[in-house]
Amino acid sequence: MSNETPRIAVEILDTTLRDGAQGEGITFSVQDKLAVVLALDKLGVTWIEAGNPGSNPKDMEFFRLAADLRLENARLCAFGSTRKKGIRAGADPQVLSLLEANTEAVVIFGKSWDLHVTEILRVSLEENLAMIAETVAFLKEQGRLVLYDAEHFFDGRLANEAYALATVKAALEAGADRIVLCDTNGGSFPDTIAEGVTAVRALVPAAGGNTAAIPEAGAPYSILGIHAHNDADMASANTVAAVKAGCRHVQGTLLGFGERCGNTSLAVVIPSMELKLGLPCLPEGRLEHISELSWKVAEIANIAVPDNMPYIGAHAFSHKAGMHADGILKISRSFEHVAPALVGNDRHFLMSEMGGRSAIAERAKKIDPSITKDHPVTATLAAKLKNMEAEGWQFEGADASFELLVRRELGRYQPFFRIEAYRVVSEHPTGETIACSHAWAKVWVDGQYEIAAAEGDGPVNALDGALRRALQHFYPELEQVRLSDYKVRVIDGNAATAAKVRVLIESTDGRSRWSTVGVSEDIIDASRAALVDSIEYKLIGDIERRFKAYL
Amino acid sequence: MSNETPRIAVEILDTTLRDGAQGEGITFSVQDKLAVVLALDKLGVTWIEAGNPGSNPKDMEFFRLAADLRLENARLCAFGSTRKKGIRAGADPQVLSLLEANTEAVVIFGKSWDLHVTEILRVSLEENLAMIAETVAFLKEQGRLVLYDAEHFFDGRLANEAYALATVKAALEAGADRIVLCDTNGGSFPDTIAEGVTAVRALVPAAGGNTAAIPEAGAPYSILGIHAHNDADMASANTVAAVKAGCRHVQGTLLGFGERCGNTSLAVVIPSMELKLGLPCLPEGRLEHISELSWKVAEIANIAVPDNMPYIGAHAFSHKAGMHADGILKISRSFEHVAPALVGNDRHFLMSEMGGRSAIAERAKKIDPSITKDHPVTATLAAKLKNMEAEGWQFEGADASFELLVRRELGRYQPFFRIEAYRVVSEHPTGETIACSHAWAKVWVDGQYEIAAAEGDGPVNALDGALRRALQHFYPELEQVRLSDYKVRVIDGNAATAAKVRVLIESTDGRSRWSTVGVSEDIIDASRAALVDSIEYKLIGDIERRFKAYL
Repeated sequence: MSNETPRIAVEILDTTLRDGAQGEGITFSVQDKLAVVLALDKLGVTWIEAGNPGSNPKDMEFFRLAADLRLENARLCAFGSTRKKGIRAGADPQVLSLLEANTEAVVIFGKSWDLHVTEILRVSLEENLAMIAETVAFLKEQGRLVLYDAEHFFDGRLANEAYALATVKAALEAGADRIVLCDTNGGSFPDTIAEGVTAVRALVPAAGGNTAAIPEAGAPYSILGIHAHNDADMASANTVAAVKAGCRHVQGTLLGFGERCGNTSLAVVIPSMELKLGLPCLPEGRLEHISELSWKVAEIANIAVPDNMPYIGAHAFSHKAGMHADGILKISRSFEHVAPALVGNDRHFLMSEMGGRSAIAERAKKIDPSITKDHPVTATLAAKLKNMEAEGWQFEGADASFELLVRRELGRYQPFFRIEAYRVVSEHPTGETIACSHAWAKVWVDGQYEIAAAEGDGPVNALDGALRRALQHFYPELEQVRLSDYKVRVIDGNAATAAKVRVLIESTDGRSRWSTVGVSEDIIDASRAALVDSIEYKLIGDIERRFKAYL
Repeated sequence: MSNETPRIAVEILDTTLRDGAQGEGITFSVQDKLAVVLALDKLGVTWIEAGNPGSNPKDMEFFRLAADLRLENARLCAFGSTRKKGIRAGADPQVLSLLEANTEAVVIFGKSWDLHVTEILRVSLEENLAMIAETVAFLKEQGRLVLYDAEHFFDGRLANEAYALATVKAALEAGADRIVLCDTNGGSFPDTIAEGVTAVRALVPAAGGNTAAIPEAGAPYSILGIHAHNDADMASANTVAAVKAGCRHVQGTLLGFGERCGNTSLAVVIPSMELKLGLPCLPEGRLEHISELSWKVAEIANIAVPDNMPYIGAHAFSHKAGMHADGILKISRSFEHVAPALVGNDRHFLMSEMGGRSAIAERAKKIDPSITKDHPVTATLAAKLKNMEAEGWQFEGADASFELLVRRELGRYQPFFRIEAYRVVSEHPTGETIACSHAWAKVWVDGQYEIAAAEGDGPVNALDGALRRALQHFYPELEQVRLSDYKVRVIDGNAATAAKVRVLIESTDGRSRWSTVGVSEDIIDASRAALVDSIEYKLIGDIERRFKAYL
């Protein structure tokens, strides 16, 4: 809890990797999780609830790897529950797994609703209070910062207020550093939320007045939190109501991923709190990256950002009615509730328009530090990106392809090979034989030709094998390269199988990872484009490294 | 305005066909519009704002055809604006077009925000008041019920409260039957909305007390309305806040379609108002059809209902966490904010789990009415589904494949053809030639063989073409079938190009639509499986229809 920036008035906990992963269709590999953590850290959230080590062995592997990440803003939390009934907290393997994750903070949830205690957990009301108090106390003894999630607090308070408040008191008295009130079923309305927060404030006078920066670790009780779900489409409104009632810790998932109708979307409530309530949630200058980073997390999850998503959606600031467009041209606030640049979005496109130039320049600087927003290359690139985006290209999740694009524009690019020809065959040859795919590819390198063939589990896998084999003849270092992820998105569903396809490939040589993209009406051709970029990026990187070693 | 059902406490105006059509990607043909009107009437909304005859000649054609519809619950409104500056209302073609639409009611919008009056419309503040008053008065003289939309009311009130209220007063004094306060830019928070409604109530004492049924046509001023947009994710919360503050007329679009981030979703706020505020909005027994009818409207618009949409989304009541599923089985309200049946939705675990048996039986009943939850076939299907889901199959979006699965289990299935062999080739033959794909397929039908070939925009498109050509030799009806959507999802991103792929195909024969699924490590093979199901489903359906005609 060292040197906090006093700027932050509301601390943010992102649980994309824990509660978000409960959403149907959301799965993250360990590598995906590390990439999400880096994006959230760049955004500048205070906490990242990154997994449930007691229920998921993969999460433990993640926490081991995550210990090596050098995070600038965010701190990791492991998530779990209070101890099981009838045993000591220190003897509960689930509780011990939280310590094993080796994070500065842990989040544990306990039951606030008497119905859940007696009918679902099937323990006595007293035993539940002991489970809460003893688990919090044990984790505090072990030196952890403890964030306590009061599950079902709002429904519980309506059913039995005295008991719901008693559970919160048990956590507070045992030393919990945060009390997070949860609308677990997501059906509450803002007035119920505000009343619930007020009731807890009365119980904990110390929580009342604090509207300032994050307190030191030794200053417990001073921050109440809110954790909302969207089952009645009230997650944003409930979060804002709780903050107005005194909460200064907000939980959610960046894109609203989560079970059923999802969690509070942080990409929505952070702009609302910063721009409309005047409560900073992120370090200075980070809000304008929230669109870009949200799109990046969406790409990692292979989930499309809804076009109509407030603040960050592709259509959030687009105008169809002629009258509205006309109004915007006269005075933008006449039809825009906030200026899109404040959240890094744009009136039409994300990357290519005026507002995106500084982002383009920033990325191009990595290759040539002399490039600025006003450099002619930046304008050329912006125009090129605009055209490519209209054709379905998308570089948010494909840094390596973007870098190659910039290099080509700068003349700092050299083709290392050419594919002369390839053929991929997928067939079900006869009778009961199962389907199979095979390919050959012929490459040209510096005047020499090489041809190679491979079988595969599908046409792309076969082409990848053939191409790599042919090129290894010239570039043996390619042997270490392998594809670590492959994603397909159909861009326009209406044209059916003749629609365009965007392929995203992630590659690794064991030392680093890079992502490339290809777009075509033909999935094989789109994959070929992404594979070629992947190999070129690797070869260029190796040569520059070697060159630098000689300097 | 004859025989109102006194049950209704909040009247609903759906503007899917007007404001909803402003959303990017939303277009309706005249036939689509008629179909949407019938669905909304079946749902039982009070008003349907169906078009803007002054700005869109197609809308006039629609109103002519719509006059022949026999609606049970809903009444149509034409939408337009106040007169242009400097002419009589009766001389403004746009105003006259509202009369020509020949609806019982008209909706007109006027400006409440001084900024818009002077800077966008560029008329004097006085002229704007005259434009409002004279247009309302003219339409009243012509015998229309007039619903007045106070555009930008909430932003306008913050900028210049006296003027915003003066515009409302102008409409009221001219005889407007409804005053609808609009948050046009969608950026307001609920407290601002409540304050705005309260301010107008003070102005119009008659509007204060009425919380009862829709008044007779002759009782103006008694209903205030709310029209919200979702730019800050507050449309639902703002609508509820306005209703709590006294509004009894709610505007929105069934699925939230609309410009930028969309309008209030009626499929969300209607259940909230009926189930949580105790304010009926629809005739008795209609709420339980809201999921089905929303899905129907989505289908007409060719827009997917978001899985996580509150109340009506496919995942709105689905539970992934084991602990939640367990809780639900003990006491459903422990993890459900409302019972899904109240809105005609279903609870989903994975299809295969315990809770899914009744869902399986329900779907199997369509093929054989004797099947119950306890029928042995149901258990066999549940086990089979569980295995298939573990392999990556997913039948949520593939009803036709699910039906074929049930038929195979029931023995009510006959293979109509067999693919003997196929070969798909994707190649970049040489030098500068662009990539191309072609395929041949050999099929067996009832002892006869046929082979055909096709080119395509990609390997799947080519295979689809070849297969269809070969089969049309035997089944000419397949000529009407075409793919209307094609989706690919890589199921486990970690194995890269050797990962499994799930293909979802939607087909149509112009009369109906059906969806099928295929899973394989090979995208071509997965597509082949989905294509085969699609064709079989079509052929079985046709035969059963013909067979029934002979009964």
